[in-house]
Order: sequence, then C-alpha cells, then structure tokens
Amino acid sequence: MTSDLRAFFEPRSVAVVGASERPGSIGRALMTNLLEKFKGEIYPVNIKYDKVFGLKCYRSVLDIPSDVDLAVIAVPADVALKVAEDCGKKGVKGLLVISAGFKEIGEEGLKREEKLLDIVRKYGMRMIGPNCLGIYNPHSGLDTIFNPSDKQGKPGPGHVAFISQSGALGAALLDWFTEQSIGLSKFVSYGNAADVDESDLIEYLTEDEKTKVIAAYIEGVRNGRKFMRAVAKAVANGKPVIVLKAGRTEKGVKAAISHTGSLAGSYDVFKGALSQCGAILVDDLLELLIAIRALETGWRVPGPRVAIVTNGGGAGVLATDSIESLGLKVTELTNKTIEKLKQVLPPAASPYNPVDVLGDAPAERYKAAIDIVARDPNVDMIMVVALLQSPALNGDELVKILREARETINKPMVFVAPGGGYAHRYVLEIQRAGIPSFRDPVEAAKALKHLYAYSKAVERVKKFSTIFAK
Amino acid sequence: MTSDLRAFFEPRSVAVVGASERPGSIGRALMTNLLEKFKGEIYPVNIKYDKVFGLKCYRSVLDIPSDVDLAVIAVPADVALKVAEDCGKKGVKGLLVISAGFKEIGEEGLKREEKLLDIVRKYGMRMIGPNCLGIYNPHSGLDTIFNPSDKQGKPGPGHVAFISQSGALGAALLDWFTEQSIGLSKFVSYGNAADVDESDLIEYLTEDEKTKVIAAYIEGVRNGRKFMRAVAKAVANGKPVIVLKAGRTEKGVKAAISHTGSLAGSYDVFKGALSQCGAILVDDLLELLIAIRALETGWRVPGPRVAIVTNGGGAGVLATDSIESLGLKVTELTNKTIEKLKQVLPPAASPYNPVDVLGDAPAERYKAAIDIVARDPNVDMIMVVALLQSPALNGDELVKILREARETINKPMVFVAPGGGYAHRYVLEIQRAGIPSFRDPVEAAKALKHLYAYSKAVERVKKFSTIFAK
Repeated sequence: MTSDLRAFFEPRSVAVVGASERPGSIGRALMTNLLEKFKGEIYPVNIKYDKVFGLKCYRSVLDIPSDVDLAVIAVPADVALKVAEDCGKKGVKGLLVISAGFKEIGEEGLKREEKLLDIVRKYGMRMIGPNCLGIYNPHSGLDTIFNPSDKQGKPGPGHVAFISQSGALGAALLDWFTEQSIGLSKFVSYGNAADVDESDLIEYLTEDEKTKVIAAYIEGVRNGRKFMRAVAKAVANGKPVIVLKAGRTEKGVKAAISHTGSLAGSYDVFKGALSQCGAILVDDLLELLIAIRALETGWRVPGPRVAIVTNGGGAGVLATDSIESLGLKVTELTNKTIEKLKQVLPPAASPYNPVDVLGDAPAERYKAAIDIVARDPNVDMIMVVALLQSPALNGDELVKILREARETINKPMVFVAPGGGYAHRYVLEIQRAGIPSFRDPVEAAKALKHLYAYSKAVERVKKFSTIFAK
Repeated sequence: MTSDLRAFFEPRSVAVVGASERPGSIGRALMTNLLEKFKGEIYPVNIKYDKVFGLKCYRSVLDIPSDVDLAVIAVPADVALKVAEDCGKKGVKGLLVISAGFKEIGEEGLKREEKLLDIVRKYGMRMIGPNCLGIYNPHSGLDTIFNPSDKQGKPGPGHVAFISQSGALGAALLDWFTEQSIGLSKFVSYGNAADVDESDLIEYLTEDEKTKVIAAYIEGVRNGRKFMRAVAKAVANGKPVIVLKAGRTEKGVKAAISHTGSLAGSYDVFKGALSQCGAILVDDLLELLIAIRALETGWRVPGPRVAIVTNGGGAGVLATDSIESLGLKVTELTNKTIEKLKQVLPPAASPYNPVDVLGDAPAERYKAAIDIVARDPNVDMIMVVALLQSPALNGDELVKILREARETINKPMVFVAPGGGYAHRYVLEIQRAGIPSFRDPVEAAKALKHLYAYSKAVERVKKFSTIFAK
C-alpha cells in the first residue's frame, strides 16, 4: 500500500504539466528546480511550446515516449481533469496536483475535486493535493516548492520529515529549518488530501529509511482512527511523531473549517487520543521547532533528572525554574560529584546543582564541570547555559569544547546563550555541531521535556501495542 | 529621598577608583567608556599611576581638587572599605561599588558588607552594589558596563528602564535590547542591594521623565511592602512595571538563595500581591522582551477584541488559537466591515476574522484590509501576520505600508512573520518602525495580552490606591 507512494518521492521520471519559461510562472520555477537538482528524467508538457529550457516539450503526457512515474500538474483547475485522464491512460503512477480551485473554493470546487478523485481511482493512480505546494526531497533532488530562493531557504538533507496541510506555513517552516540547520528527509505540502492523506504519509515515512523523525502541521485529520494507528505504529517503530494541530480553541476550529473545510473536533479529545499513541503535541511554531531539534538527535533518556552548568547564577535560577515548572527535576548531585567539582572549581563557585562556574569562567572551566556532572549517575540530561557577554569566555573555545563533549559524553545535552547577535551566532553554530541550542532556558527545558516524554512514550506504546510494531 | 539617587544617573563629576590602562582590566574598560561618552568631569584614582589616558590620576579621592558626585569603585573588596571612608570624608554623594567579595561569598563577606554600609550611612552617602555591573545611562553617557563591545551591544536612548539583580543576565538583556531596537532610559545592575534596593530604584524611575516603562529582573525582594508600594505608585503614575522573578519554583527559590542570599518567599504569594499592584509578571526572558516591546509603545486598549489580517489561512488559525488561549477574543467583525472587505478583496478571500487576504496578496491588499478593520468599532487591536515567503508579497512595500499604518491608525497593532533569515530581517525592520514584531503568532498574542492586562491594571490601581498617586 505505502509502496504506491514511492513514485512521489523517488520517481525515475517526472512530467511537468504546465512547464514554461515565462518569468514569474510556477511552471518556470518547477522546471528550474528540477533541472538544477533532480537526477531522473524530466519531461516538460505544455501545449504552447515546442521546447522549454532546451528540452523537447510535449503537447500531452500521452506523447511522452517513455514511462512516467510522476506527473506534477500546475495548470488551471478546469484543465487538470483532462490532464489527469491523460495521465491515467499513460500509466502514470503518481499525480502531484499543485493547482488550486477545488474543495477549498466551495461547492463548485468540491464537485471538481470529486471528479478528479474518480479519475485517479479509475486508473489506480495515487494523488497528492490538489491545492498544495508539493514535495521537496533533498535526497533525490525532487523539488516542486516554487517560492523565490532569496525569500525562502531550503534545508539540506537530514532525517526529519515534515508534512504540512498548509503550503504557506510549510514554506515558512522550511525556511526556518534552514536557519536552524535542521536536516530534512522529506517535505510534503499535501493540501486538500483528496487521496493521499496525513495518515498515508506517516505510514510511508515510518518505512522510509531516511526518516528518523516525523513532524506534522495539521488543521483537520481526515480519518481519526487511521491517523492514530499510523502514529502509534511510527512510535512503536522508534520514530517520534511531533504534531502541531491548528484549531485548538473553539474559534480556532471555526477558522480551520473555513480555511480548509477540515472537520476539526475537540482538541482535548484529539490530544488525549494522540498522546496515548505516543505523539508529541506542541502548541505553536516555536515549540514545533524546539521539539524537532530535540528529537532529531535520536537521544533517549532514562529519567527526568537534569544538571545545569552555567557561568551566571541568575541564569541558573531561571533554568531551574523552567526545568521544574515543566515537570522535570533539577537533580541532586552525588557527594562524589560535588567533591570532584570542588577540586576543579574556584572556592566561590557552586558545586551544587545548578553548578555555577562563575562569571570569570573561561571555556576550559565549563569542560571540567561538564565532564564531571556527565559521569554522575543521578544525571540523565545536561543543560549548559553560557552568558557569552562575559569577557572571560571565548565563544570559539566553548564551541570546540561542546563539540568534543557531544562526541565523548553519553548523555543528552542542550545549550543556551541568552542575548543578541553575538550570542545568537554561537547558538546557531553550536546547533550545527549537533547540540540543540537556544536563547532562553525555557526553550531548552521544553526540548528536554519532549525528549523525556518521547522516551517514556516509546516504552508505553511498545508495551500496549505490539500489534502495531513491524 | 529619591532625589539622593540623581548622583548615580546624572553626576556632574565621576571618580573612577581603580582606573587603569592595563589591557583587559575593568579599570581600563570603565575609563574608555566614560571618556567616549560621559559629558561631565572624570577623575581617575589609582595609587599606582600618575596619569591614566592622559588625565591626571589621583592617589586618593581626597586629593581631587573639585567636588565629586559619584565614585565608581572597582578595587579589591578589602581595599573598598578604605576607599569608601575617603569618599565619605570627601563629601561624595554616591558610591557605585562594582567590587565583588561581599555578602555573596558568605560569612566573611557579609561582615565586610555590613562595615561598608556603616561607612555609607555614617557619611550620609548612598550606595549601589556591591557586586554589580553598575549603570548605563545612554542619555547622560554614564556607562560602567565593562563587557567588550563586540560581545555585548548597548541599546540607544529610549524610554525603557531596566533594573537587574544579576549583572550577567542584565548584560545579556542589554545585548538583546540592542538587537530588538528597544530604546533605554536607564540600566542598573544593583547587585547585593546593600543600600539602594529595587524599590528605591523603582521610586526614582517613577519620577524620572525619561522613563516610561520599568522592567526588572529580580531574585529576591528586600522589603516586600516597600516593593509593592513602589510598584503600585509607578503604575498609578502611568508607568508599567514588568517583573521577571527568578525563583518561581521550590528548587528555583533554593538556587536563588544560594546565589544571592536573597530571601525569596512563595512565588504564588508574590505573584498575587504584585498583580494586585498592577505589575505585569512574566515567566522567562523571551516573555520579558515581548512585554517590554508591547508596553514601550505607550498604547492603551479599551478591550480584548483582536482582528487578524493574514495571507495564510493556516497562520490565521494558529493566530486565533494563540489569542483565544491567552484569554483575548478573536472579534466578530461588523457587517459593515465584512461588506467593505468583500468589495476590496478577491472572492476567494475570507472577509471574516481571521481576514485572509490570500497567498497571492501583494502588500497593497494588506493595506486595504488593515484600513477597513481598523475602523471597525468591534476591533480593539490588530494582529498582522505575513508569510513573507510568498512570491507575491514584497517585504519592502509591506514595511512602508505598516509604517504608514502605525501613523494613521489609532489602534494597537502587532506584526508576525514566521520563518528564517529573510522573514526575521523584516521582523527587526518593522520593529524599528515602532510596531512590536515577532516570528510566531503566540509571541504577538502575548504582547497583546500584556498590553490589555496593563490597561486594565492602570484603571484598577488608580481606583483603589489614590493614595499612591502623585
């Protein structure tokens, strides 16, 4: 069943229906993206042209002399039905319908969408869309996201799959991923989900070797039971599923219905059911990014006990508040750890948790403290907080030390540096080194919370749903 | 009483005790800061030198031939007592004691601090510190913050006063203010608060004409009743007081005590009492920045009803959720507004709240929609959400339109642009235009929440505490 979807992500050949060289057109953006990155065959289709970017342009997919795995359709909605029919006759496996003008515009569009779906079913094809941005797969080079490259970055290859009911928000998040060095396995803007829906995609991604974390922006789920089953199966197979559900309030539900026509039920029910299945639910875009960065590390934690290492007493208190208010524990260090810390830290430093290495700490003092707390059996996770404004602390040296620690220490570690541009530069750099990094302790605490919640969820879901596991 | 504090913020002359040219020394950083910006007289004091940066250097403050308003003391703790004694004899009005080695190091330090305070009292001086970073006043050019300028930015002049019990966190926030274009009236890192405490500073800032918003990072309040009185008086005089209190959890309180020796009681009690006084309480650094940006606008709002204008349906749903979950209302637009919106928007757009101007909206369409909703009597505040990745939306044009709207529209407006570098650049630019701007709708919703909460608090505090008003 899910193998049907391979045509969308790893097609050997793609027909671009609506291909064009016209500046500003979607057909041009699609062609330039594919010519630049896609490794398979590309067939432009447009009744108006003989050639597009030097490639022979076909009047219909039926004229293409070879097999076509995937047709990307970017023509007006009324033309799309005819194109779909041609694709069916041609034996195309997947239709990616970018065109809008379907269910989202009301009664007339809904009828058109039903006809489109009939054609898809008749020929045994699968369809993503209509009314979507499509797919970006940095591994295969398939890329139908047509926003200008100066306005929206595209993340490099990695292990996070992101599916989005909203194309526009999806694009904003791709841009954000790029800034935060989140590596992508697959991105899908699936629009109206007339055929392939969020559950199908999660099932496919569960079997996808490149994907280790699945994140989803969802306004309404088409089939609740199917969705829960897909999520539980993903979790039981070791893949975290992070869900940002829009329509968490009564007014939000109303807005979601008016936006996509999705039927969105009570969020509390949704949340309860999905948590049972082991999903990580987040409340906003920032938290979605936090959870992704935490879980893409692949770390699992046995307990909620956190050690804090900081050069600022106040920052240590704020970190403590954040950790404790989110249900984690600021751990008691063992006496052995405390004694060892006393040996390496100056007398005014605090060897208790939060460990305060003092404002005059050079990077080396962080290293000494981190090495010691990492070996404490009472410590499950480490939060390193650095006030980089301190004259004594060299940011580059701290990066080096944390990069080494990432390799040698066998416990999850997050990093925080409050402040403006200088601090933020190091946050991004340490993030690139594979340590989830933030500007406020509360963000780092949320990262640890989700890490721990997922670790617990895996065990729970595995226990009660062995039927879901492979 | 508070007039005593003028010597700290607008001294005519400053003695720098511990002045030096030695690279990396605090004495050097203090001298360079003051020589660069301070408009009054500067007297270096150091037994070791005859001249510092070309200025005559005195062996003692007693040798200075003119009056000294303020002495900045950056010498070892044991020397500080002698220096204070000299200052007293000299008739210095204010001591700013940067030196550490007092209460924060334990019993011995506590005794030293008591002796220091005795000297201060004996001569009728006032003291800020010890163990602090000191003062930055961008208006008078007084600046004792000694972090390297490449590591920490300093905000330009403006109307926000920020007082911080922690010097290191204070410095991080100054840096953050700079990035977010938050203008500063005064910054005070007040350290151990042996003499001048958080309440004295709030009282002074309440009377300070340059200050319109007071923000505070606090670990422990020295005198609860005095503090409440100072806060209520500030609020009754139209100055919002935003408080980030570290030590909100049991473990956080413990950490705060170990850090500063401050006695921090139950946060719930503190929060309840302070809310009664009209303070805006925030939970983390990010929320502190959000509340400051909301309240520095000086806007007051009569009600909680928000209109959303966006080019993304999904973003509109997320904005709705954020607004409603924080206790504000996504308003019902009047029929008249809806009809007017229908006239200017394309048929597929949504003229209901959230107003969806569609993904292909140019900046002009935002202008049309904002102008109409701003005139709706059901609208108290406006949240503009832009997915700037859209090829149709020109960021520069949107900036222009929002800048104009800021002038012509008589209702509070916040801006949101989710995404990476490109979007963030415009967030910062629109922030500079005087519109609080954010990357996630939830941040903008928090800004509106604090704006509304403060507007209500002013009325309440004025009613029940006319005794506090001037």
